[in-house]
Amino acid sequence: MKPEVKGIYPPITTPFDTEENIDFKALESNIAKWNETNLAGYVVFGSNGEYAFLTEQEKLDIVKACVTYAAPGKKVIVGSGCESTRDTIALTNKCAKLGAHYALVVNPNFYKGSMTKKVLKAHYTAVADNSDIPILLYNVPKNTNINLDPDLVADLAQHPNIVGIKDSSANITQLAQIISLTDDDFNVLVGTAGVLYPGLVYGAKGGVMALATCCPDKCLEIYDLFHGGKYEEAKKLQMRMIPVNNAVTGTFGISGLKYVMDTLGYIGGPVRRPLLPLTEEEKVKLDQILKTAGLI
Amino acid sequence: MKPEVKGIYPPITTPFDTEENIDFKALESNIAKWNETNLAGYVVFGSNGEYAFLTEQEKLDIVKACVTYAAPGKKVIVGSGCESTRDTIALTNKCAKLGAHYALVVNPNFYKGSMTKKVLKAHYTAVADNSDIPILLYNVPKNTNINLDPDLVADLAQHPNIVGIKDSSANITQLAQIISLTDDDFNVLVGTAGVLYPGLVYGAKGGVMALATCCPDKCLEIYDLFHGGKYEEAKKLQMRMIPVNNAVTGTFGISGLKYVMDTLGYIGGPVRRPLLPLTEEEKVKLDQILKTAGLI
Amino acid sequence: MKPEVKGIYPPITTPFDTEENIDFKALESNIAKWNETNLAGYVVFGSNGEYAFLTEQEKLDIVKACVTYAAPGKKVIVGSGCESTRDTIALTNKCAKLGAHYALVVNPNFYKGSMTKKVLKAHYTAVADNSDIPILLYNVPKNTNINLDPDLVADLAQHPNIVGIKDSSANITQLAQIISLTDDDFNVLVGTAGVLYPGLVYGAKGGVMALATCCPDKCLEIYDLFHGGKYEEAKKLQMRMIPVNNAVTGTFGISGLKYVMDTLGYIGGPVRRPLLPLTEEEKVKLDQILKTAGLI
Amino acid sequence: MKPEVKGIYPPITTPFDTEENIDFKALESNIAKWNETNLAGYVVFGSNGEYAFLTEQEKLDIVKACVTYAAPGKKVIVGSGCESTRDTIALTNKCAKLGAHYALVVNPNFYKGSMTKKVLKAHYTAVADNSDIPILLYNVPKNTNINLDPDLVADLAQHPNIVGIKDSSANITQLAQIISLTDDDFNVLVGTAGVLYPGLVYGAKGGVMALATCCPDKCLEIYDLFHGGKYEEAKKLQMRMIPVNNAVTGTFGISGLKYVMDTLGYIGGPVRRPLLPLTEEEKVKLDQILKTAGLI
Repeated sequence: MKPEVKGIYPPITTPFDTEENIDFKALESNIAKWNETNLAGYVVFGSNGEYAFLTEQEKLDIVKACVTYAAPGKKVIVGSGCESTRDTIALTNKCAKLGAHYALVVNPNFYKGSMTKKVLKAHYTAVADNSDIPILLYNVPKNTNINLDPDLVADLAQHPNIVGIKDSSANITQLAQIISLTDDDFNVLVGTAGVLYPGLVYGAKGGVMALATCCPDKCLEIYDLFHGGKYEEAKKLQMRMIPVNNAVTGTFGISGLKYVMDTLGYIGGPVRRPLLPLTEEEKVKLDQILKTAGLI
Repeated sequence: MKPEVKGIYPPITTPFDTEENIDFKALESNIAKWNETNLAGYVVFGSNGEYAFLTEQEKLDIVKACVTYAAPGKKVIVGSGCESTRDTIALTNKCAKLGAHYALVVNPNFYKGSMTKKVLKAHYTAVADNSDIPILLYNVPKNTNINLDPDLVADLAQHPNIVGIKDSSANITQLAQIISLTDDDFNVLVGTAGVLYPGLVYGAKGGVMALATCCPDKCLEIYDLFHGGKYEEAKKLQMRMIPVNNAVTGTFGISGLKYVMDTLGYIGGPVRRPLLPLTEEEKVKLDQILKTAGLI
Repeated sequence: MKPEVKGIYPPITTPFDTEENIDFKALESNIAKWNETNLAGYVVFGSNGEYAFLTEQEKLDIVKACVTYAAPGKKVIVGSGCESTRDTIALTNKCAKLGAHYALVVNPNFYKGSMTKKVLKAHYTAVADNSDIPILLYNVPKNTNINLDPDLVADLAQHPNIVGIKDSSANITQLAQIISLTDDDFNVLVGTAGVLYPGLVYGAKGGVMALATCCPDKCLEIYDLFHGGKYEEAKKLQMRMIPVNNAVTGTFGISGLKYVMDTLGYIGGPVRRPLLPLTEEEKVKLDQILKTAGLI
Repeated sequence: MKPEVKGIYPPITTPFDTEENIDFKALESNIAKWNETNLAGYVVFGSNGEYAFLTEQEKLDIVKACVTYAAPGKKVIVGSGCESTRDTIALTNKCAKLGAHYALVVNPNFYKGSMTKKVLKAHYTAVADNSDIPILLYNVPKNTNINLDPDLVADLAQHPNIVGIKDSSANITQLAQIISLTDDDFNVLVGTAGVLYPGLVYGAKGGVMALATCCPDKCLEIYDLFHGGKYEEAKKLQMRMIPVNNAVTGTFGISGLKYVMDTLGYIGGPVRRPLLPLTEEEKVKLDQILKTAGLI
């Protein structure tokens, strides 16, 4: 029986100061605010965590801090996927020692042409065999240009230490297939707020979504409305949130997400270069989207 | 107030004899069987109708036959999109004269690089202005490599003679956006059975789906279960149908769809070349999918 | 021994009047001008011929006209590819009867998912078996989203009635492979002026290129400079023409090509809808490109 | 006046032992063999160097070793691109201190949606402003799914410390455009052996190509034949090498490249996981390609 991973998780951003160094006080402040909600825990180093810009030492410092700041009962899930199998195993276990509960492992993706199912299966199996904490697969084709097919996921789900998936493909048919093809104790989480409600309808246990970083209440409300059988209200709120979600995950990227956090009472702060802050014109557009959604 | 287009429609196949000529008797026989169901009508020349292989005269003969064979109350929707604006208008109105109720108009797509939103808006506006019957947009990026974005669709939905869309993108977030951005009398239909249930959850009025050609009862059952509030059963049946739908729309194409029709009591018959019939090995694989889904 | 197809061919545009009807006088006038050059002949219904917008009867009328207008010795190559095998054969032979010398056959492409190598091989073989004139393959992935791989081309080149290819992929490595894998009498033509010079370097026999429609002299000059061993001058002229070619085949499409024809002394005239004429702003940009290239 | 970077460079592989640790002896042995050729130097951490799998410390150790092993006069170019601007600057300057002559900087690519021209320009400008050694741009869309457009490259070429580009796009028209748009002292290098000869024809100064790692003599021969005016022989050798190059850069990836190195007298050795060694079946296929090319 695999451990249950359910509810709403924000893939937290990494706050930086104006010198682009990690701002741990801002991190503590954000987590303190999130601790007051019903969020199930925190995903450290989802794509929105700018993890591709962090050194290993920075990553470990952040994990340590998050474990400390998280309220009791909140789970800490750490993105520990590296391009090589050996680095992935090493980083996963370092995070485990610091108190992380689960590892969210993105597939290697730089050598796209070589990432066959056979290669990916061997990779994930080696990682799962050697990891001290349970593994969640992380499928994010928008960034990796590789999709983890349902049959590969179903195959990997047989491994006792692979306990779930965050699927950020936004492909609801694929999500349904994964749920169909795996046992009930395999934890399927939607990876983007755009499909939270239909994902729950299909049986997803919850989700990890950028939108929960800036608007946790709205994501939790969709989750609760669904579980309370208030389908019509859940649907309407979901539809109202789609343009906001598109803005913070697509059009405006992490810079947009951090801007919305700043707007809605969290500390977004600067992005690390090469990312650039929003222009004034972009801010005006994004404000309009927030207004239309009733968030400001 | 736009006319309502709701329920389940099969995009009917075009039966051929062994010389690749149209087999009108087979067509009559199929429609007679479908007439006994609660299907809302027929879509003639959806992609599965092999319409790209038909001459204009063949198309008109088929429309005339379908209008004759369809039971009273069944709507006949005709795919009348051509690459040029003038041909689209001309064909639409010829079909209207033969008794077609709606025109399903795919966007021009051969000159992909030039199909900007401005071009597409002008095209659809000219067609709608000049068409004697109401227009349904048809978005099928799998074949056209062009997507009709929700904002373009919302814009076109302002036209009194553009009354709905068949969205075959399988992108449920986009479907939700289209529903959000358009008035309630704009008829949004899912274009593939893979998203029928989540589409209905979001407020789609029905669907046009290859699966309804070979398994109309299953599609109607999902529709009825949803409308009867039996969500858990609807979901389960939907999940069971996804692999069958993937097979007849993706992996095995029209050849696969016709094979399944032959297997399940309809007349699929030969495809027109360059399409080739399934190999024996492919038939075995497809039979297995039907068995797993409980269809044979 | 296959017949030789060499030199520079313009894929001629189809002139329309302001009612979008074919303007045969304009066509005659353009061909009269081209007849004065060393162009090897004419390609009727390359992609730039707006063939996707023409009815069969219009196509036949144009072929007849071109055969009449073409100066003695100029070859007439007709684009006769349709989506179905039977239509392709029928149209090819109708064109042959009207005096066309070669058929340029684009691969069927609407049912992309089904266009496997096996399907394409069977299609082209059936067409070549039944065609009264020799066949040239036409690879234009920009429009079809399908590439004819070198091994498929080499395989088809074994057919006595398949005598060459127009490869518009702009992939020079692929062009070299096709030349490597086929006999010397298989006529490899580049399909875009962007790779004319490197194509000749690799042994292409010539090319069919939009640029030759509006600037035949420049294309012929590159061809002649290369064959005269004046490589440095050929290279420089080629480099100077690339931005013009990009403009008339990419950025501004057929509308741009017709505008440049109007500018340089030919009759471009209106496009057929859904294509739209250039805006004033686009005309200014295109004029600038022509100025930079020394064409105006 | 920018320093000249010309000739043939192998993007050297990183040899590993059976424990996947770096095998410095094998590296020394390979470099000793390459030192005997006319290769212009070495590219450390091109994509074939498995650099995505190396820790920073490993990278620095390898750079130090290469600088030591390289014969006098051979240039050492180091791939120092990281996802963040700050890491890229830091790594570049560490490599500079160890004796690297040039930095080859791939564009950040994980956050694809945010890598606009504006972002990339700011990134490269900051890197070039702060780097102690000259910068070569590295365009490898096959791995990054981002293309550095000719106008962006031309813009960046204005920077005094950006001295050239390795373009691995295999797009020869783009290569010609870059050469057209930049001054003569901007060093344009082809990034794949598939376009070496046509690249030289267009004025490229040389190339960095996987094929030079296993078959340096063949690459040098093409280079020398071209510069000796023996175009026909250069062309023929180029055409003979294309299938080998496709095999070691495409079909069989780094595993294939290392296998060919082992076959032709260098030490390829194991790949680091997740990459897997070739299967016996793949080896047979690759041997056949080498045989056909006359290499074994």
